[in-house]
Amino acid sequence: DLLAVCVVGDGEAETGPLAAAWHSNKFLNPATDGAVLPILHLNGYKIANPTVLARVSREELEAYLRGCGYRPYFVEGDDPARMHQLMAATLDKVLDEIEEIQHRAREEGVVERPTWPAIVLVTPKGWTGPKIVDGQQVEGTFRSHQVPFAEMTDEHLKLLEDWLKSYRPEELFDERGTLRPELAELAPKGKRRMGDNPHANGGLLLRDLELPDFRDFALEVPGPGRVSGEATKVMGAFLAEVMRLNAPYRNFRLFSPDEAESNRLGAVVDVGLRRWNAQLIPGDDRLSPEGRVMEILSEHTIEGWVEGYLLTGRHAVFASYEAFIHIVASMFNQYAKWLDVSEEISWRRPVASLNYLLTSHVWRQDHNGFSHQDPGFIDHVLTKKASVTRVYLPPDANCLLVITDKCLRSRGLVNVIVAGKQPQPQWLDMDSAIKHCSAGIGIWEWASNEEGDPDVVMACAGDVPTMETLAAVDFLRKYLPELKVRVVNVVDLMTLQPQSEHPHGLTDKEFDSLFTVDKPIIFAYHGYPWLIHRLTYRRTNHGNLHVRGYKEEGTTTTPFDMTVRNELDRFSLVRDVIDRVPGLAQRAARIRQMVRDLHVDHALYIQEHGDDLPLVKEWTWGYYSQS
Amino acid sequence: DLLAVCVVGDGEAETGPLAAAWHSNKFLNPATDGAVLPILHLNGYKIANPTVLARVSREELEAYLRGCGYRPYFVEGDDPARMHQLMAATLDKVLDEIEEIQHRAREEGVVERPTWPAIVLVTPKGWTGPKIVDGQQVEGTFRSHQVPFAEMTDEHLKLLEDWLKSYRPEELFDERGTLRPELAELAPKGKRRMGDNPHANGGLLLRDLELPDFRDFALEVPGPGRVSGEATKVMGAFLAEVMRLNAPYRNFRLFSPDEAESNRLGAVVDVGLRRWNAQLIPGDDRLSPEGRVMEILSEHTIEGWVEGYLLTGRHAVFASYEAFIHIVASMFNQYAKWLDVSEEISWRRPVASLNYLLTSHVWRQDHNGFSHQDPGFIDHVLTKKASVTRVYLPPDANCLLVITDKCLRSRGLVNVIVAGKQPQPQWLDMDSAIKHCSAGIGIWEWASNEEGDPDVVMACAGDVPTMETLAAVDFLRKYLPELKVRVVNVVDLMTLQPQSEHPHGLTDKEFDSLFTVDKPIIFAYHGYPWLIHRLTYRRTNHGNLHVRGYKEEGTTTTPFDMTVRNELDRFSLVRDVIDRVPGLAQRAARIRQMVRDLHVDHALYIQEHGDDLPLVKEWTWGYYSQS
Ligand SMILES: Cc1ncc(C[n+]2csc(CCOP(=O)(O)OP(=O)(O)O)c2C)c(N)n1
Ligand SMILES: Cc1ncc(C[n+]2csc(CCOP(=O)(O)OP(=O)(O)O)c2C)c(N)n1
Repeated sequence: DLLAVCVVGDGEAETGPLAAAWHSNKFLNPATDGAVLPILHLNGYKIANPTVLARVSREELEAYLRGCGYRPYFVEGDDPARMHQLMAATLDKVLDEIEEIQHRAREEGVVERPTWPAIVLVTPKGWTGPKIVDGQQVEGTFRSHQVPFAEMTDEHLKLLEDWLKSYRPEELFDERGTLRPELAELAPKGKRRMGDNPHANGGLLLRDLELPDFRDFALEVPGPGRVSGEATKVMGAFLAEVMRLNAPYRNFRLFSPDEAESNRLGAVVDVGLRRWNAQLIPGDDRLSPEGRVMEILSEHTIEGWVEGYLLTGRHAVFASYEAFIHIVASMFNQYAKWLDVSEEISWRRPVASLNYLLTSHVWRQDHNGFSHQDPGFIDHVLTKKASVTRVYLPPDANCLLVITDKCLRSRGLVNVIVAGKQPQPQWLDMDSAIKHCSAGIGIWEWASNEEGDPDVVMACAGDVPTMETLAAVDFLRKYLPELKVRVVNVVDLMTLQPQSEHPHGLTDKEFDSLFTVDKPIIFAYHGYPWLIHRLTYRRTNHGNLHVRGYKEEGTTTTPFDMTVRNELDRFSLVRDVIDRVPGLAQRAARIRQMVRDLHVDHALYIQEHGDDLPLVKEWTWGYYSQS
Repeated sequence: DLLAVCVVGDGEAETGPLAAAWHSNKFLNPATDGAVLPILHLNGYKIANPTVLARVSREELEAYLRGCGYRPYFVEGDDPARMHQLMAATLDKVLDEIEEIQHRAREEGVVERPTWPAIVLVTPKGWTGPKIVDGQQVEGTFRSHQVPFAEMTDEHLKLLEDWLKSYRPEELFDERGTLRPELAELAPKGKRRMGDNPHANGGLLLRDLELPDFRDFALEVPGPGRVSGEATKVMGAFLAEVMRLNAPYRNFRLFSPDEAESNRLGAVVDVGLRRWNAQLIPGDDRLSPEGRVMEILSEHTIEGWVEGYLLTGRHAVFASYEAFIHIVASMFNQYAKWLDVSEEISWRRPVASLNYLLTSHVWRQDHNGFSHQDPGFIDHVLTKKASVTRVYLPPDANCLLVITDKCLRSRGLVNVIVAGKQPQPQWLDMDSAIKHCSAGIGIWEWASNEEGDPDVVMACAGDVPTMETLAAVDFLRKYLPELKVRVVNVVDLMTLQPQSEHPHGLTDKEFDSLFTVDKPIIFAYHGYPWLIHRLTYRRTNHGNLHVRGYKEEGTTTTPFDMTVRNELDRFSLVRDVIDRVPGLAQRAARIRQMVRDLHVDHALYIQEHGDDLPLVKEWTWGYYSQS
C-alpha cells in the first residue's frame, strides 16, 4: 500500500528523462505494486524563463497528461487558506481513487491498466515570499527563483523582516522560542516521519538474496580454449535461478532498455517474464503484469527505476549495450555522489549495489558500427570516488559467474561488469576462475613459459583482448619458442591502481612482482588505452608499459578487423613484442615480416569474403604452436 | 519554406530526449522559420518488445500528440497500394495545412502558435518482408527486427528468394539488370536528391560570421591583478555584438538550458531576445517569437537544436553549467564520431564548430553544492579523436575573448571553453592575452623570478587554479624570496599532449624547455588531476610532475574552502613546493608550519563567519609580497 508522492517542477518537466518517465505507469501493476501520485507543480517559471507547460492552453496540458495515462486534478490559487482546503479535498478524492483502483485490481481481479490520478498544483512562484523588490514584481515571476534579494541594504533588511514576520512566528513559538507543543503534536511520529520512513532508508528493508551456488552453472572447461561459450548466456542461466529463488520475496529484478533477449539473457525472461501493464495481444512474448524483467527503450527511465528499486531495499542488474550506457552518465554521477556522501551518514544502512552489465561491447558490433563502439563509460566511472566504484572485465564465462555472484553480494557500490555475448573460447575451469577472480589479477601459468624471468609481460584485460593476447602468445610459441613470455590477466581493473588510491589496488611489491621492474609490458586492454596509463603511472615499470586498446577506429566490419584497425590484434601484439624486447628486432626480422604479410592477407580476405581468415576464426589455444 | 520531415520510431519515442523534443514546436515561428513534419512510425515493436505508444488506446495516443501541440493524422493499413494512396492524400492535406499556417503567419500577421500537423503511420513491423519463418509469425511482430533470419538453410534460401522476388525485379530492371529509364526518371534530380540537398551538407550554406574586433571588448588591465572582472560577462558583451552584426543573416544563436542570464550572458539576451512562441503575458522578460537565444530546460533538446543548426550551416554557442553538460555526453559522442567520419568524405563541406561554454564551474558553486561539482566533461571529450576536439581554459576575461573569437572562426571542431562567471582578479592586458592564447601555453614572466633556471615550476590551467597558483607564488615571494619560481599557464590543454597525439601538442623540446627536465612541477588544474598525467606521461619530466585538482571533495561551502578541501588552495600549493623542492623541507620548516596554521585559521573563520578570511578574499597580486 505504499504511496510515493512525487512533486515535479514544471521546469524539470521539460527535461528528457522526466518527459519519458510519465510512461512508467504502463509498468505499474495495481494488484501487486504500490502507487505513485505525481504532483506537477505548475508555478510557471524556471530560473529566468516561463515554463512550457504553463504557457500552453489548459486543454493542451490536460490532453498531455491524459495522453500520458493520467487523470489530472487541478488545484489552483494563491490564497493559502483556500488552497489548503482545496489541496486537502483533492488529496482525499485522489487517495480514494487510488484505493478504488487497487481494490478493483486486487479484489475484483480487474487487470486492465487503470487511469491513475495526478495533481496539477498551480500556484505563484515564490508564493508567500516578498512580493515586490526594488520596484520589480517578484512573487509570481521567475525573479523569486532561489534568492529573491541578496545584498542586505536597509530596505532589503526591512523586506526580510516583513517576510519572515508574515509567517507569524509569535503564534508558532513560545516566549523562549520553542515550537508550541500543540503544533509539534501535529507532526507525524516515528516511522511516519519522512526522514525515518524505512522506504527512504532502504538498507533497513534489505534482505540478502537467496543465491544458488554459481558453480552449478559453470561451463565444463577441460582445458584452455577447448570449448566455446557465450558468457552472458551462462550468466543468464544463473540470474534466471536467482530470479526463481527470490520470487517469493519480490526483491530482484533485471532492467534493460529492450535488450535483455538481444544480450542473451533470455533465460531470465523465461523465468521472470517482462513487466507489461499496457495492452496485451495474442502472440505476445513473455509479457505479464507480474513480470520482473523491466524493459522500456529509455536508458534514463531504466536508471531511474533501478535507483528507486535499490534505494527502497531491493536488488537489481541493469544490462545495457556498452556504447549507450553513456546516456546515463550524468545520472550515474549523481548516484555515485549520493553513495559517497551517504557512506558518512551513520544512520543510513547500505543498500544493494548498482550492478551494470555492459555487453554488446565495442569489439563485437558486427552488423552495427562506429556509433555502437564506445568503451568510455569505464573512464567515466573512474572519476568518482574509489570507495564506491568497481570495474570488472571477466575474460570468460566462468569468471563472469564468479564476478556476478560477488557483485550481487556486495553493498553500497557501483559495479561495472563488461562481458561479451558472442561465442568465444573459454579459458578457466570453475576452480581456476574462482581463484583468479578472488585475486582479481594473476599470472596464467599455463599460458606462460617462464620461471620467474620473462623477456616480456603480455598483460590483458577484457574478453577480446585476452583472446588476442593468447593467440599472440600461441603464435610466439611456434615462431619464437625461446622467447620467455609471462601472461598476466586482469579481471578487477582497480588492482592496477596504487593501494593508496583504491582499496583493491596492489601494493607496489605485488605489482612489481607481476609486471617486473624492467621488462617490456605489452598490455592489451578492452577500452581507451590511456586509462591503463592513468592507473599505473606511479608504478616502477611504467616506463616500459605499452598499451593497446580502442582508439576510435571503427566501422561495420568483421570482429577481427576491429582489432586490426585498433592494433589490438594478435599480429600487432606479436609485432609490438618484437619491437620492444631488446635484441629481438634483428633476430625476429622474418617473423615481423610474416605478421606484416598476415595483415595484408587479412585485408584481402575480408574484402573478398566479408568474413575473417580461417586461421583467425578457427584459432584456439594451441592452434598455431601445435600445428 | 524548408520542410524537415522527421520519421520517429515508436521505440525511439520512448527515449527521454525524444519525449522532450516534441515541445520544440513552442519555439518555432511560422512567420520566419521553416516547418517540421513529424511522422511517428507506429509499427508496434522494438527489438524484442511491443512499444508503449502502440499499446495505449488510440484516444490516449491522440491526446498525447495533441498535448504536445500537434494535430495527428493517422495513416493505417497493410495493403501497399492502398497505403500509397492514403499517404499521398494525407501528405497533400498536411502540406496544405502547413502552407496555410505559414500564410496566416506571414501574410495575415497571426502571431499565435499554430497547431502543427503530425502523421502517425501505422504499419506492420517488417512490412512486406517474410511473413512466417520457422513456423513463427515474423511480419507484424518484433521478430522482423533487423534480421528476420540468419543461417542460410535451404528453407531460408527459398524464403529469401520469394521475398526478393515479391518486389518483382523483372518489372524494375531490364535484361541487363539496369533500372528501367522510365523508373529512374521518377527520382528527383540535382539538389532535390536527398543526399545533395544543401541543407544536408550545411557547409555549402555556411557564411562566415561578421565578427567585431574582440579587442574592443577588452578589459583595461593596467597591471596583473589590478582590476576585477567577470569573464563570461565580458564574453557576453562580445557575443551580443556578434548577435547584432549577424542579425541580417539570421545565422547566429545562443543556446542554453535556461541559464543564459544566470551565466552572465544577459547582454546577448538584450540584443537577441529569447525565442518564445508559446503564450506571452505582460511582464515577460525579453521573450519574442523572433528571439535568437534558445532556452528550454533540456540539455538534450538544446544539444539537438544546436546540432541541427550547425549542420544546416549556421553558427552557435551552447552555454551550460559545467556539471550538467554530462547530460549530453552520449549525444556528444555521436556528434564527435560524425565529425570524425565526415572529415574523410570529400564532398562534405566543414560546418561551424560546436562551441560549448562551460561555466558555473566546479570551484564556484557557492549556494549550490556537491551535486553541481563535476569537471569530468573534459575527460570525456578527450576520449574522442584529437582531430575534432579542443579544450580551452582561459585564465581571465581577455583570454576568454581571444579564445571565443578563435572558436567562432574555427570549423568542424568541438570546442570546449571552461570559464567562470564570478568576479576575479584579471591578469593580462589584451596584447598579452593575444600572445599567450595564440601559443596556448607560456611562461608568465611577471609572475616568475628566475632567469632560465627555476627551482620549481608552478603550472596552472583554469581560472581558479591560476589564481591560487599566483597567490602561492606571491606568498613564496614574501617568505621564501630566494626560491626561484617559474609560472607556466596553460590555456589550450591540448598543448600538453605529445605532438604525435594532437595537432596542438608541443614538441618534446618545447615542453622540456617550459617544464624543465628535472625540476619539480606543481600543477594546479581545474579538473580531475589524472587527466594531466594522462596527457603528459610520455614527457621527459613526468616523474617530477605533481598535480592538484578536483578529487570529489565538495559541498556547499565558501569558494576558498572548495580549494582547501581539494588541496588546490594557495597554502597547499606552498606546502607542495616546500615538500618537493630538494632541500627546502628543512630550511622552510617554519613556513610549512605557517601554512598549516593558516589552514586552521581558515577552518575556524569560515565556521564562524560563513565567509572566507580577509587575507584570502582581499588577496590580489602583490598582496602578500608587498605587505
Ligand atoms: C539538469 C539541470 N539543468 C539546469 C539546472 C539549473 N536550474 C536550477 S533550478 C532551474 C529551474 C527549475 O525550475 P522548476 O523545475 O520549475 O522548479 P521551481 O520553479 O519549483 O524552482 C534550473 C534550470 C539544473 N539544476 N539541472
Ligand atoms: C539508445 C539506444 N538504446 C538501445 C538501442 C538498441 N536498439 C536498436 S533498434 C531498437 C528498437 C528501435 O525501435 P523503433 O524505434 O520502433 O524502430 P523500428 O521498429 O522502426 O526498427 C533498440 C532498442 C539503441 N540503438 N539505442
